[in-house]
Amino acid sequence: MRVLGVDPGLTRCGLGVVDIAGRKAALVDVRVATSIPSMAAPERLAVVGDALDAVLDEFAPDAIALERVFAQHNVRTVMGTAQASGVVMLAAARRGLPVEMYTPSEVKAAVTGDGRAQKAQVGFMVARILGLAEPPKPADAADALAIAITHGWRGGTVGAATDAQSRWAAAERAARRRG
Amino acid sequence: MRVLGVDPGLTRCGLGVVDIAGRKAALVDVRVATSIPSMAAPERLAVVGDALDAVLDEFAPDAIALERVFAQHNVRTVMGTAQASGVVMLAAARRGLPVEMYTPSEVKAAVTGDGRAQKAQVGFMVARILGLAEPPKPADAADALAIAITHGWRGGTVGAATDAQSRWAAAERAARRRG
Repeated sequence: MRVLGVDPGLTRCGLGVVDIAGRKAALVDVRVATSIPSMAAPERLAVVGDALDAVLDEFAPDAIALERVFAQHNVRTVMGTAQASGVVMLAAARRGLPVEMYTPSEVKAAVTGDGRAQKAQVGFMVARILGLAEPPKPADAADALAIAITHGWRGGTVGAATDAQSRWAAAERAARRRG
Repeated sequence: MRVLGVDPGLTRCGLGVVDIAGRKAALVDVRVATSIPSMAAPERLAVVGDALDAVLDEFAPDAIALERVFAQHNVRTVMGTAQASGVVMLAAARRGLPVEMYTPSEVKAAVTGDGRAQKAQVGFMVARILGLAEPPKPADAADALAIAITHGWRGGTVGAATDAQSRWAAAERAARRRG
């Protein structure tokens, strides 16, 4: 399955596309939409929206994985991030694409095994998983890819895993009946 | 000038269109896009986006006035409101429409003269300004109209006022030169 991971933001919005097959993950595309704080918010959101549409048009992912925003830290940054998330979710809904949200710690845990891993460790593991010579830069690019990998491994494979698990459970029940 | 006022939200998003000429204001349209919390966020944002597009297509406002969101009170509600605001701002940017933001107290002050007015007073004054028999219901409808009126009276007339003011200033300078 092809997943678009999005690390939402106004100043830098990471967009990473990854193909996932089982535990294998391959880089398809990664880019970061950027705008400066002196631009008006509507224009900044148009930068995000245009970059998003370009990626969706060009790579046609099967699903979008989006980092879940929390109202913590810097209130102003969080509002911008929430606005960008709204743009991503609307685009997904209009294209009929499923969207799954992951917290930063879920993403860190999925790619590094440690929900409190440092940024550098996430970049290191993303490079390793995708077979890249070095971590994608900036961090927003690596984060977007990490979010896509997380979905491919966790949410994205839930259907398949559940199917395999239910067949296994059915086989077990059949074995017990025979036994 | 024709102004679309938006009271952003996921559960209820007020959309009010008002024609403003000087201090006169006339109701063009008002509606509230609604969705329930059990719906997924992308679908809720699509409800907002679709209602917004319908109003923009049908009534072709000259500007959008949007309530400014603060990260205060309920964090979850605020995030949804910020996401809806993002959808509104993106639509404005894509259609080349100017967007102005107003705080709730700016809107209350503009229509009632009191920045800390109660909801009911805002509804009462909106009805009075627009010559309606009673306050628009629900409150989100009245709020959207109040935001549109605020823009028409404050931001929307800034250009005209500045123009008149600059002509007055020029006349004053000319008078001083003659004197």
